[in-house]
Amino acid sequence: MDHDAGGAAGTRQRPRLIDFYFDFSSPYGYLSSERIERIAARHGCVLRWHPILLGVVFKRTGGAPLPSQPLKGDYALHDFARTARLHGIEYRMPTRFPVSGVPPSRAFLWVANRDADAAVALAKALYRAYFIDDVDIGSVEGTVQVARSVGVECEPLERGMESAEVKAQLKAEVDAAMVAGVFGSPFFLVDGEPFWGDDRVEQVDRWLATGGW
Amino acid sequence: MDHDAGGAAGTRQRPRLIDFYFDFSSPYGYLSSERIERIAARHGCVLRWHPILLGVVFKRTGGAPLPSQPLKGDYALHDFARTARLHGIEYRMPTRFPVSGVPPSRAFLWVANRDADAAVALAKALYRAYFIDDVDIGSVEGTVQVARSVGVECEPLERGMESAEVKAQLKAEVDAAMVAGVFGSPFFLVDGEPFWGDDRVEQVDRWLATGGW
Repeated sequence: MDHDAGGAAGTRQRPRLIDFYFDFSSPYGYLSSERIERIAARHGCVLRWHPILLGVVFKRTGGAPLPSQPLKGDYALHDFARTARLHGIEYRMPTRFPVSGVPPSRAFLWVANRDADAAVALAKALYRAYFIDDVDIGSVEGTVQVARSVGVECEPLERGMESAEVKAQLKAEVDAAMVAGVFGSPFFLVDGEPFWGDDRVEQVDRWLATGGW
Repeated sequence: MDHDAGGAAGTRQRPRLIDFYFDFSSPYGYLSSERIERIAARHGCVLRWHPILLGVVFKRTGGAPLPSQPLKGDYALHDFARTARLHGIEYRMPTRFPVSGVPPSRAFLWVANRDADAAVALAKALYRAYFIDDVDIGSVEGTVQVARSVGVECEPLERGMESAEVKAQLKAEVDAAMVAGVFGSPFFLVDGEPFWGDDRVEQVDRWLATGGW
Protein backbone atom coordinates (compact mmCIF):
# COMPACT_ATOMS: atom_id res chain seq x y z
CA MET A 1 0.00 0.00 0.00
CA ASP A 2 2.94 2.33 0.64
CA HIS A 3 4.09 4.69 -2.05
CA ASP A 4 7.52 6.26 -2.10
CA ALA A 5 6.91 9.94 -2.63
CA GLY A 6 10.62 10.56 -3.30
CA GLY A 7 11.34 7.74 -5.72
CA ALA A 8 11.74 8.18 -9.44
CA ALA A 9 8.94 6.19 -11.06
CA GLY A 10 8.34 4.46 -7.70
CA THR A 11 11.29 2.13 -8.14
CA ARG A 12 13.11 3.00 -4.92
CA GLN A 13 11.90 1.17 -1.86
CA ARG A 14 11.27 2.98 1.35
CA PRO A 15 13.70 1.87 4.08
CA ARG A 16 12.06 -0.50 6.53
CA LEU A 17 11.15 0.86 9.90
CA ILE A 18 11.63 -0.39 13.45
CA ASP A 19 9.75 1.54 16.13
CA PHE A 20 11.37 0.68 19.48
CA TYR A 21 9.28 1.48 22.56
CA PHE A 22 10.91 1.33 25.99
CA ASP A 23 10.51 2.48 29.57
CA PHE A 24 13.68 3.83 31.17
CA SER A 25 13.09 1.66 34.24
CA SER A 26 12.71 -1.56 32.25
CA PRO A 27 15.57 -4.06 32.56
CA TYR A 28 14.50 -5.92 29.41
CA GLY A 29 14.19 -2.56 27.64
CA TYR A 30 17.81 -1.84 28.57
CA LEU A 31 18.94 -5.25 27.28
CA SER A 32 17.18 -4.64 23.97
CA SER A 33 18.64 -1.14 23.69
CA GLU A 34 22.07 -2.78 23.59
CA ARG A 35 21.08 -5.15 20.76
CA ILE A 36 18.52 -3.54 18.49
CA GLU A 37 20.84 -1.05 16.72
CA ARG A 38 22.97 -3.85 15.29
CA ILE A 39 19.87 -5.61 13.95
CA ALA A 40 18.49 -2.41 12.43
CA ALA A 41 21.85 -1.73 10.77
CA ARG A 42 22.13 -5.29 9.42
CA HIS A 43 18.84 -4.93 7.58
CA GLY A 44 19.21 -1.29 6.59
CA CYS A 45 16.29 -0.23 8.77
CA VAL A 46 15.43 3.14 10.17
CA LEU A 47 15.25 2.75 13.97
CA ARG A 48 13.04 5.14 15.93
CA TRP A 49 13.35 5.32 19.72
CA HIS A 50 10.16 5.97 21.73
CA PRO A 51 10.35 6.33 25.50
CA ILE A 52 7.05 5.37 27.15
CA LEU A 53 5.80 5.36 30.75
CA LEU A 54 4.80 1.87 31.85
CA GLY A 55 3.09 3.30 34.93
CA VAL A 56 0.60 5.05 32.66
CA VAL A 57 0.20 1.94 30.49
CA PHE A 58 -0.33 -0.34 33.51
CA LYS A 59 -3.21 1.87 34.69
CA ARG A 60 -4.95 0.89 31.49
CA THR A 61 -3.91 -2.77 31.29
CA GLY A 62 -3.80 -3.69 34.97
CA GLY A 63 -0.15 -4.75 34.69
CA ALA A 64 2.49 -4.34 37.37
CA PRO A 65 6.30 -4.25 37.43
CA LEU A 66 7.59 -7.84 37.22
CA PRO A 67 9.80 -7.73 40.33
CA SER A 68 6.83 -6.78 42.55
CA GLN A 69 4.78 -9.83 41.57
CA PRO A 70 4.63 -12.92 43.82
CA LEU A 71 6.90 -15.78 42.67
CA LYS A 72 7.49 -14.02 39.33
CA GLY A 73 9.48 -11.30 41.07
CA ASP A 74 12.37 -13.48 42.23
CA TYR A 75 12.49 -15.24 38.89
CA ALA A 76 12.53 -11.93 37.02
CA LEU A 77 15.52 -10.64 39.00
CA HIS A 78 17.34 -13.90 38.24
CA ASP A 79 16.38 -13.82 34.57
CA PHE A 80 17.42 -10.17 34.02
CA ALA A 81 20.96 -10.95 35.15
CA ARG A 82 21.16 -14.35 33.42
CA THR A 83 19.95 -12.96 30.10
CA ALA A 84 22.38 -10.03 30.35
CA ARG A 85 25.24 -12.51 30.87
CA LEU A 86 24.08 -14.58 27.91
CA HIS A 87 24.37 -11.54 25.64
CA GLY A 88 27.54 -10.21 27.25
CA ILE A 89 25.81 -7.02 28.41
CA GLU A 90 26.98 -5.35 31.59
CA TYR A 91 24.12 -5.21 34.09
CA ARG A 92 23.49 -4.53 37.76
CA MET A 93 20.06 -4.37 39.37
CA PRO A 94 19.67 -0.75 40.52
CA THR A 95 19.27 0.06 44.18
CA ARG A 96 16.11 2.05 43.49
CA PHE A 97 13.64 0.16 41.33
CA PRO A 98 11.49 1.11 39.56
CA VAL A 99 12.14 4.82 39.16
CA SER A 100 10.04 7.43 37.38
CA GLY A 101 10.57 7.48 33.65
CA VAL A 102 9.34 11.07 33.46
CA PRO A 103 12.64 13.00 33.80
CA PRO A 104 14.67 10.83 31.39
CA SER A 105 11.80 10.64 28.88
CA ARG A 106 11.29 14.40 28.89
CA ALA A 107 15.03 14.94 28.50
CA PHE A 108 15.07 12.50 25.58
CA LEU A 109 12.21 14.32 23.82
CA TRP A 110 13.71 17.76 24.37
CA VAL A 111 17.02 16.62 22.85
CA ALA A 112 15.28 14.66 20.08
CA ASN A 113 13.44 17.80 18.97
CA ARG A 114 16.87 19.26 18.22
CA ASP A 115 19.07 16.30 17.25
CA ALA A 116 17.78 12.74 16.84
CA ASP A 117 21.23 11.13 17.05
CA ALA A 118 22.09 13.02 20.22
CA ALA A 119 18.83 11.79 21.74
CA VAL A 120 19.73 8.17 21.01
CA ALA A 121 23.17 8.69 22.57
CA LEU A 122 21.44 10.18 25.60
CA ALA A 123 18.97 7.28 25.88
CA LYS A 124 21.79 4.75 25.85
CA ALA A 125 23.79 6.77 28.38
CA LEU A 126 20.74 7.03 30.67
CA TYR A 127 20.10 3.29 30.50
CA ARG A 128 23.75 2.51 31.23
CA ALA A 129 23.88 5.00 34.07
CA TYR A 130 20.86 3.33 35.66
CA PHE A 131 21.64 -0.33 34.97
CA ILE A 132 25.41 -0.26 35.37
CA ASP A 133 26.35 2.73 37.54
CA ASP A 134 23.24 2.82 39.75
CA VAL A 135 22.54 6.51 38.99
CA ASP A 136 19.01 7.55 39.99
CA ILE A 137 17.79 8.66 36.57
CA GLY A 138 14.27 9.00 38.02
CA SER A 139 15.39 12.33 39.49
CA VAL A 140 15.90 15.49 37.46
CA GLU A 141 19.39 15.78 38.95
CA GLY A 142 20.36 12.26 37.91
CA THR A 143 19.05 12.70 34.38
CA VAL A 144 20.74 16.08 33.96
CA GLN A 145 24.04 14.69 35.25
CA VAL A 146 23.93 11.96 32.59
CA ALA A 147 22.94 14.46 29.90
CA ARG A 148 25.93 16.61 30.81
CA SER A 149 28.23 13.60 30.43
CA VAL A 150 27.15 13.23 26.77
CA GLY A 151 27.56 16.92 26.00
CA VAL A 152 24.04 18.28 26.45
CA GLU A 153 23.87 21.82 27.82
CA CYS A 154 22.19 21.59 31.18
CA GLU A 155 20.43 24.89 31.68
CA PRO A 156 18.35 24.88 28.50
CA LEU A 157 17.69 21.18 29.05
CA GLU A 158 16.31 21.73 32.55
CA ARG A 159 14.09 24.56 31.30
CA GLY A 160 12.97 22.39 28.40
CA MET A 161 12.08 19.47 30.66
CA GLU A 162 9.77 21.78 32.61
CA SER A 163 8.19 23.31 29.51
CA ALA A 164 4.52 22.78 28.74
CA GLU A 165 5.46 21.66 25.24
CA VAL A 166 7.66 18.78 26.33
CA LYS A 167 5.22 17.72 29.05
CA ALA A 168 2.40 17.59 26.50
CA GLN A 169 4.63 15.83 23.99
CA LEU A 170 5.44 13.00 26.40
CA LYS A 171 1.79 12.52 27.25
CA ALA A 172 0.93 12.43 23.54
CA GLU A 173 3.74 9.94 22.84
CA VAL A 174 2.50 7.54 25.51
CA ASP A 175 -1.08 7.86 24.28
CA ALA A 176 0.01 7.23 20.71
CA ALA A 177 1.96 4.15 21.77
CA MET A 178 -1.12 2.69 23.47
CA VAL A 179 -3.23 3.44 20.42
CA ALA A 180 -0.64 1.52 18.39
CA GLY A 181 -1.16 -1.45 20.75
CA VAL A 182 1.98 -1.07 22.85
CA PHE A 183 1.51 -2.47 26.37
CA GLY A 184 4.99 -3.39 27.60
CA SER A 185 8.71 -2.70 27.37
CA PRO A 186 10.49 -3.37 25.16
CA PHE A 187 8.00 -3.38 22.32
CA PHE A 188 8.84 -3.31 18.62
CA LEU A 189 6.76 -2.42 15.59
CA VAL A 190 8.54 -3.69 12.50
CA ASP A 191 6.79 -2.07 9.56
CA GLY A 192 3.76 -2.27 11.87
CA GLU A 193 4.22 -5.92 12.93
CA PRO A 194 4.19 -6.06 16.77
CA PHE A 195 6.79 -7.89 18.87
CA TRP A 196 6.74 -7.71 22.65
CA GLY A 197 9.71 -8.44 24.85
CA ASP A 198 13.46 -8.72 24.72
CA ASP A 199 12.93 -12.42 24.02
CA ARG A 200 11.43 -11.46 20.65
CA VAL A 201 14.54 -9.65 19.37
CA GLU A 202 15.62 -12.81 17.53
CA GLN A 203 12.20 -12.97 15.87
CA VAL A 204 12.53 -9.31 14.83
CA ASP A 205 15.87 -10.17 13.23
CA ARG A 206 14.38 -13.15 11.43
CA TRP A 207 11.29 -11.21 10.36
CA LEU A 208 13.50 -8.64 8.67
CA ALA A 209 15.74 -11.29 7.12
CA THR A 210 12.88 -13.33 5.69
CA GLY A 211 10.19 -10.74 5.09
CA GLY A 212 7.93 -12.47 7.59
CA TRP A 213 6.58 -16.00 7.84
CA MET B 1 26.93 -31.93 45.37
CA ASP B 2 24.99 -34.85 43.92
CA HIS B 3 26.17 -38.37 44.52
CA ASP B 4 25.30 -41.21 42.22
CA ALA B 5 24.07 -43.98 44.48
CA GLY B 6 24.17 -46.49 41.66
CA GLY B 7 27.60 -45.70 40.23
CA ALA B 8 30.66 -47.85 40.80
CA ALA B 9 33.14 -45.69 42.72
CA GLY B 10 31.03 -42.64 41.85
CA THR B 11 32.38 -42.42 38.30
CA ARG B 12 29.06 -42.54 36.47
CA GLN B 13 27.25 -39.24 36.18
CA ARG B 14 23.59 -38.94 36.88
CA PRO B 15 21.63 -38.03 33.73
CA ARG B 16 20.61 -34.40 33.69
CA LEU B 17 17.01 -33.62 34.43
CA ILE B 18 14.44 -31.36 32.79
CA ASP B 19 11.22 -30.86 34.73
CA PHE B 20 8.62 -29.54 32.28
CA TYR B 21 5.57 -27.88 33.87
CA PHE B 22 2.57 -27.09 31.69
CA ASP B 23 -1.14 -26.30 31.83
CA PHE B 24 -3.26 -28.14 29.29
CA SER B 25 -4.96 -24.87 28.30
CA SER B 26 -1.69 -23.03 27.66
CA PRO B 27 -0.88 -22.28 24.01
CA TYR B 28 2.79 -21.67 24.78
CA GLY B 29 2.81 -24.90 26.82
CA TYR B 30 1.57 -26.73 23.75
CA LEU B 31 4.25 -25.15 21.55
CA SER B 32 6.95 -26.20 24.02
CA SER B 33 5.53 -29.72 24.25
CA GLU B 34 6.29 -30.07 20.55
CA ARG B 35 9.92 -28.96 20.97
CA ILE B 36 11.25 -30.00 24.36
CA GLU B 37 11.61 -33.74 23.72
CA ARG B 38 14.13 -33.18 20.92
CA ILE B 39 16.20 -30.92 23.17
CA ALA B 40 16.10 -33.41 26.05
CA ALA B 41 17.17 -36.20 23.69
CA ARG B 42 20.00 -34.14 22.19
CA HIS B 43 21.55 -33.65 25.63
CA GLY B 44 20.73 -37.09 27.03
CA CYS B 45 18.39 -35.63 29.63
CA VAL B 46 15.61 -37.26 31.55
CA LEU B 47 12.44 -35.27 30.81
CA ARG B 48 9.65 -35.29 33.39
CA TRP B 49 6.20 -33.97 32.45
CA HIS B 50 4.19 -32.15 35.13
CA PRO B 51 0.67 -30.92 34.41
CA ILE B 52 -0.25 -27.96 36.59
CA LEU B 53 -3.38 -25.84 36.99
CA LEU B 54 -2.72 -22.19 36.18
CA GLY B 55 -6.07 -21.22 37.71
CA VAL B 56 -4.79 -22.37 41.10
CA VAL B 57 -1.43 -20.69 40.55
CA PHE B 58 -3.03 -17.40 39.47
CA LYS B 59 -5.04 -17.29 42.73
CA ARG B 60 -1.70 -17.07 44.48
CA THR B 61 0.15 -14.79 42.06
CA GLY B 62 -2.68 -12.58 40.84
CA GLY B 63 -2.03 -13.56 37.22
CA ALA B 64 -4.67 -13.97 34.52
CA PRO B 65 -4.86 -15.77 31.18
CA LEU B 66 -3.04 -13.67 28.58
CA PRO B 67 -5.89 -13.46 26.05
CA SER B 68 -8.21 -11.89 28.64
CA GLN B 69 -5.88 -8.96 29.38
CA PRO B 70 -6.44 -5.54 27.76
CA LEU B 71 -4.15 -4.85 24.77
CA LYS B 72 -2.03 -7.92 25.65
CA GLY B 73 -4.88 -10.22 24.68
CA ASP B 74 -4.98 -9.37 20.98
CA TYR B 75 -1.22 -9.47 20.79
CA ALA B 76 -1.10 -12.86 22.51
CA LEU B 77 -3.53 -14.40 20.02
CA HIS B 78 -1.39 -13.04 17.19
CA ASP B 79 1.85 -14.22 18.79
CA PHE B 80 0.62 -17.76 19.51
CA ALA B 81 -0.12 -18.33 15.83
CA ARG B 82 2.97 -16.50 14.55
CA THR B 83 5.31 -18.43 16.86
CA ALA B 84 3.67 -21.72 15.89
CA ARG B 85 4.27 -20.91 12.22
CA LEU B 86 7.89 -20.00 12.95
CA HIS B 87 8.48 -23.45 14.42
CA GLY B 88 6.36 -25.28 11.85
CA ILE B 89 3.90 -26.47 14.50
CA GLU B 90 0.28 -26.99 13.54
CA TYR B 91 -1.92 -24.72 15.65
CA ARG B 92 -5.46 -23.40 15.79
CA MET B 93 -6.88 -21.27 18.59
CA PRO B 94 -9.56 -23.42 20.23
CA THR B 95 -13.18 -22.30 20.22
CA ARG B 96 -13.40 -22.67 23.99
CA PHE B 97 -10.54 -20.99 25.80
CA PRO B 98 -9.35 -21.46 28.44
CA VAL B 99 -10.74 -24.83 29.52
CA SER B 100 -10.32 -26.62 32.83
CA GLY B 101 -7.05 -28.49 33.12
CA VAL B 102 -8.52 -30.79 35.75
CA PRO B 103 -9.81 -33.69 33.58
CA PRO B 104 -6.73 -33.96 31.34
CA SER B 105 -4.33 -33.53 34.28
CA ARG B 106 -6.06 -36.22 36.32
CA ALA B 107 -6.07 -38.53 33.31
CA PHE B 108 -2.36 -37.88 32.83
CA LEU B 109 -1.58 -38.73 36.46
CA TRP B 110 -3.70 -41.88 36.48
CA VAL B 111 -1.93 -43.16 33.37
CA ALA B 112 1.50 -41.99 34.62
CA ASN B 113 1.06 -44.04 37.79
CA ARG B 114 0.97 -47.11 35.52
CA ASP B 115 3.16 -46.22 32.51
CA ALA B 116 5.19 -43.04 32.23
CA ASP B 117 5.67 -43.28 28.46
CA ALA B 118 1.96 -43.82 27.87
CA ALA B 119 1.26 -40.71 29.94
CA VAL B 120 3.56 -38.61 27.76
CA ALA B 121 1.86 -39.97 24.63
CA LEU B 122 -1.47 -39.03 26.20
CA ALA B 123 -0.30 -35.50 27.10
CA LYS B 124 0.82 -34.85 23.53
CA ALA B 125 -2.40 -36.28 22.13
CA LEU B 126 -4.48 -34.12 24.48
CA TYR B 127 -2.58 -30.99 23.50
CA ARG B 128 -2.97 -31.75 19.79
CA ALA B 129 -6.63 -32.56 20.19
CA TYR B 130 -7.18 -29.19 21.85
CA PHE B 131 -4.89 -26.99 19.75
CA ILE B 132 -5.38 -28.63 16.36
CA ASP B 133 -8.72 -30.48 16.36
CA ASP B 134 -10.64 -28.18 18.73
CA VAL B 135 -11.65 -31.03 21.07
CA ASP B 136 -12.93 -29.77 24.43
CA ILE B 137 -10.38 -31.53 26.65
CA GLY B 138 -11.73 -29.55 29.61
CA SER B 139 -14.61 -32.03 29.75
CA VAL B 140 -14.30 -35.59 31.03
CA GLU B 141 -15.83 -36.82 27.77
CA GLY B 142 -13.30 -34.96 25.63
CA THR B 143 -10.35 -36.18 27.67
CA VAL B 144 -11.59 -39.79 27.67
CA GLN B 145 -12.17 -39.69 23.90
CA VAL B 146 -8.54 -38.62 23.37
CA ALA B 147 -7.30 -41.25 25.83
CA ARG B 148 -9.16 -43.94 23.92
CA SER B 149 -7.50 -42.82 20.69
CA VAL B 150 -4.07 -43.56 22.19
CA GLY B 151 -5.10 -46.95 23.55
CA VAL B 152 -6.04 -46.18 27.14
CA GLU B 153 -8.90 -48.27 28.51
CA CYS B 154 -11.71 -45.90 29.26
CA GLU B 155 -13.65 -47.45 32.12
CA PRO B 156 -10.77 -47.81 34.57
CA LEU B 157 -9.52 -44.38 33.48
CA GLU B 158 -12.83 -42.71 34.25
CA ARG B 159 -12.99 -44.42 37.65
CA GLY B 160 -9.38 -43.42 38.29
CA MET B 161 -10.00 -39.78 37.41
CA GLU B 162 -12.73 -39.69 40.05
CA SER B 163 -10.67 -41.44 42.72
CA ALA B 164 -9.66 -39.65 45.89
CA GLU B 165 -6.05 -40.70 45.27
CA VAL B 166 -5.74 -39.01 41.89
CA LYS B 167 -7.59 -35.91 43.06
CA ALA B 168 -5.20 -35.58 46.00
CA GLN B 169 -2.22 -36.30 43.77
CA LEU B 170 -3.08 -33.46 41.38
CA LYS B 171 -3.51 -31.04 44.25
CA ALA B 172 -0.15 -32.14 45.70
CA GLU B 173 1.54 -31.79 42.30
CA VAL B 174 0.33 -28.22 41.86
CA ASP B 175 1.36 -27.31 45.40
CA ALA B 176 4.79 -28.86 44.87
CA ALA B 177 5.21 -26.90 41.65
CA MET B 178 4.47 -23.62 43.40
CA VAL B 179 6.88 -24.53 46.21
CA ALA B 180 9.50 -25.07 43.50
CA GLY B 181 8.80 -21.53 42.24
CA VAL B 182 6.69 -22.40 39.20
CA PHE B 183 4.23 -19.61 38.34
CA GLY B 184 3.49 -19.99 34.63
CA SER B 185 3.26 -22.36 31.68
CA PRO B 186 5.48 -23.59 30.25
CA PHE B 187 8.07 -23.62 33.01
CA PHE B 188 11.29 -25.62 33.01
CA LEU B 189 13.60 -26.62 35.82
CA VAL B 190 16.89 -27.76 34.30
CA ASP B 191 18.77 -29.46 37.11
CA GLY B 192 16.92 -26.92 39.26
CA GLU B 193 17.66 -23.84 37.11
CA PRO B 194 14.32 -22.11 36.32
CA PHE B 195 13.25 -21.00 32.84
CA TRP B 196 9.80 -19.52 32.21
CA GLY B 197 8.11 -19.41 28.85
CA ASP B 198 8.27 -20.99 25.43
CA ASP B 199 10.61 -18.16 24.49
CA ARG B 200 13.20 -19.63 26.89
CA VAL B 201 13.40 -23.02 25.13
CA GLU B 202 16.48 -21.83 23.21
CA GLN B 203 18.12 -20.82 26.50
CA VAL B 204 17.31 -24.27 27.94
CA ASP B 205 19.04 -25.82 24.94
CA ARG B 206 22.06 -23.57 25.36
CA TRP B 207 22.19 -24.08 29.13
CA LEU B 208 22.43 -27.83 28.58
CA ALA B 209 24.99 -27.47 25.78
CA THR B 210 27.29 -25.15 27.74
CA GLY B 211 26.67 -26.18 31.33
CA GLY B 212 25.34 -22.70 32.09
CA TRP B 213 26.80 -19.24 31.76
